[in-house]
Amino acid sequence: MGVRLRYIIVAATVLFVIFYFYTSSKLPPEQTQGIIQPIVSHDGRFTHESPFIFIGGIPRSGTTLMRAMLDAHPLIRCGEETRVIPRILALRAQWKKSDREWKRLQEAGVNDQVINAAISSFIVQVIAGHGAPAPRLCNKDPFTLKSTVYLSEIFPNSKFILMIRDGRATVHSIISRQVTITGFNLNDFRQCLTKWNAGISVMYEQCNEVGPSRCLMVNYEQLVLHPELEMKKLLDFLEVPWNSSVLHHEALIGKDISLSKTERSTDQVVKPVNLDALTKWVGHIPEDVVADMASIAPMLEVLGYDPHGNPPNYGKPDDIVIKKTKDIHENGEEWYKKAVAVVNDPSRVDKPV
Amino acid sequence: MGVRLRYIIVAATVLFVIFYFYTSSKLPPEQTQGIIQPIVSHDGRFTHESPFIFIGGIPRSGTTLMRAMLDAHPLIRCGEETRVIPRILALRAQWKKSDREWKRLQEAGVNDQVINAAISSFIVQVIAGHGAPAPRLCNKDPFTLKSTVYLSEIFPNSKFILMIRDGRATVHSIISRQVTITGFNLNDFRQCLTKWNAGISVMYEQCNEVGPSRCLMVNYEQLVLHPELEMKKLLDFLEVPWNSSVLHHEALIGKDISLSKTERSTDQVVKPVNLDALTKWVGHIPEDVVADMASIAPMLEVLGYDPHGNPPNYGKPDDIVIKKTKDIHENGEEWYKKAVAVVNDPSRVDKPV
Repeated sequence: MGVRLRYIIVAATVLFVIFYFYTSSKLPPEQTQGIIQPIVSHDGRFTHESPFIFIGGIPRSGTTLMRAMLDAHPLIRCGEETRVIPRILALRAQWKKSDREWKRLQEAGVNDQVINAAISSFIVQVIAGHGAPAPRLCNKDPFTLKSTVYLSEIFPNSKFILMIRDGRATVHSIISRQVTITGFNLNDFRQCLTKWNAGISVMYEQCNEVGPSRCLMVNYEQLVLHPELEMKKLLDFLEVPWNSSVLHHEALIGKDISLSKTERSTDQVVKPVNLDALTKWVGHIPEDVVADMASIAPMLEVLGYDPHGNPPNYGKPDDIVIKKTKDIHENGEEWYKKAVAVVNDPSRVDKPV
Repeated sequence: MGVRLRYIIVAATVLFVIFYFYTSSKLPPEQTQGIIQPIVSHDGRFTHESPFIFIGGIPRSGTTLMRAMLDAHPLIRCGEETRVIPRILALRAQWKKSDREWKRLQEAGVNDQVINAAISSFIVQVIAGHGAPAPRLCNKDPFTLKSTVYLSEIFPNSKFILMIRDGRATVHSIISRQVTITGFNLNDFRQCLTKWNAGISVMYEQCNEVGPSRCLMVNYEQLVLHPELEMKKLLDFLEVPWNSSVLHHEALIGKDISLSKTERSTDQVVKPVNLDALTKWVGHIPEDVVADMASIAPMLEVLGYDPHGNPPNYGKPDDIVIKKTKDIHENGEEWYKKAVAVVNDPSRVDKPV
């Protein structure tokens, strides 16, 4: 080969490269299909294939505690309840429920694939956008776990944490704190228990349907009694390395953990994990309701709670929890002030014991 | 330079190129910030920066005719009403309306930026996903034009077409065809006119607010009388080259133009542009309503319709429209059969004249 020929080869290579690179950045869209670049969040970091974590359960079952403990992990960010994610899921459920409406949407080309792309895009933008970035993003809006199966389909790499709590404690908390929840009559313990039973039953079925590799049930009582054991199981399930900061979320409030003044559990997660809430309900349930417990709320037994125990034996706490509970009692005034400072409304904070 | 050196240059160039190309396809997300890659549709072709076209107006004002005429253009695809786009806009309006709810969302980090990213992502997926691809995508869901200002913000390159029609004709059509619209009492002409007035007044204000470079008002009557002139103005406004196929949309039904069996205007847009619908309303309005017309529907005068003309003088049709109308009358049976074949329900199709 002559010298000129080699120059030509070099020049041609460079030109080819420039041309290839230029055109590849404008690949006709047909060629990008299947790569599924679509549902990319505003900061370009998250798609529907990201390993999102969804936390849910009936409100007042420890979902805020769970998300605060995970928020304490340096690799995870959950954040406040978004409120809009369960609503868009409800909107879809409503369309799907009406045969007439669903048929009209099909006629308009708005089929499952289109709706799923639209809804998952919406959710990705909200989860990624409403808080700081983190390697693992997590969402806690209690009622989303009613849609576990659907979410598991539109987010193929997601995992789910279903918080389970003794329904008597949950309902007592809802009623005594007057927490508004659609469908719950706050003047009727029996009616609230029925609603609890129906709600948790749907979530339980959905969780079972996606299976233990995707959905983990966590008992609030066990989490409170044995935080280290339960969080180790949980982080294993999430494939996130262990970090002991999850056992001391109270130290990170206002730093790595962002709380909403308007959420009803904020004043409680300001405090460390403690035993105070476990049996508060005992003695506060109408007698006729206590007598019919097993038939009003059959999910109690399904979930391993003795419907006739008042209280049942939840187990023996770890030493660290006894110590933290003691601290809360001894320094009640200080923890009270801390809670008031965060929620900015003394009437919503429990008085020191 | 020796022969070996040149070989090395060639090899190094090739290696550099392969390396550069390989790494560029895996750019860390941080480096893509600011490019706003986010709201990319499922097929990767459309983002919130795409030049979408939104068509709207009060139902029964020619919005389907307009979208069918644009669908006939080889560069544009509109398609059926998606039904879900106005609903997600209504959901946001509802959140925004309640101070309490809006404050809660802000507390949760779900601010305007997050909501806009979520809603525009949703809309892009629906518009792009529910029909065939085209260089210019268009959406027709009549009530979206109530949100013209908001849509113009989240889609900075979008344009809007507001269909205007004599409210008396619109209401007569709604009532005589029993078209269900939230808020309209189909047994009360006066009430419907009031609703028409309120609705068109919001859309008119929104259209004026974004200005004539983004929003064009098109009179249904003028479109029907002078299709060529009006469509030339319109395509100019959209910056789309003229194509005479927009004047013969009836030839493309079922081919380039996809219609929904369940939409109420489908049987009518099967036919060519014609004069039949212009003055059908005359003689069908209760006398007391005719007498109070100017005060019941002040928007009539604002939009240039004489409230005391029954009918007003809409103008003289172009020859081509006279010809097409004659064709419909002479071949009534054929056009009727065509319409029945498309909507699959004879009871919903006008009998031949």
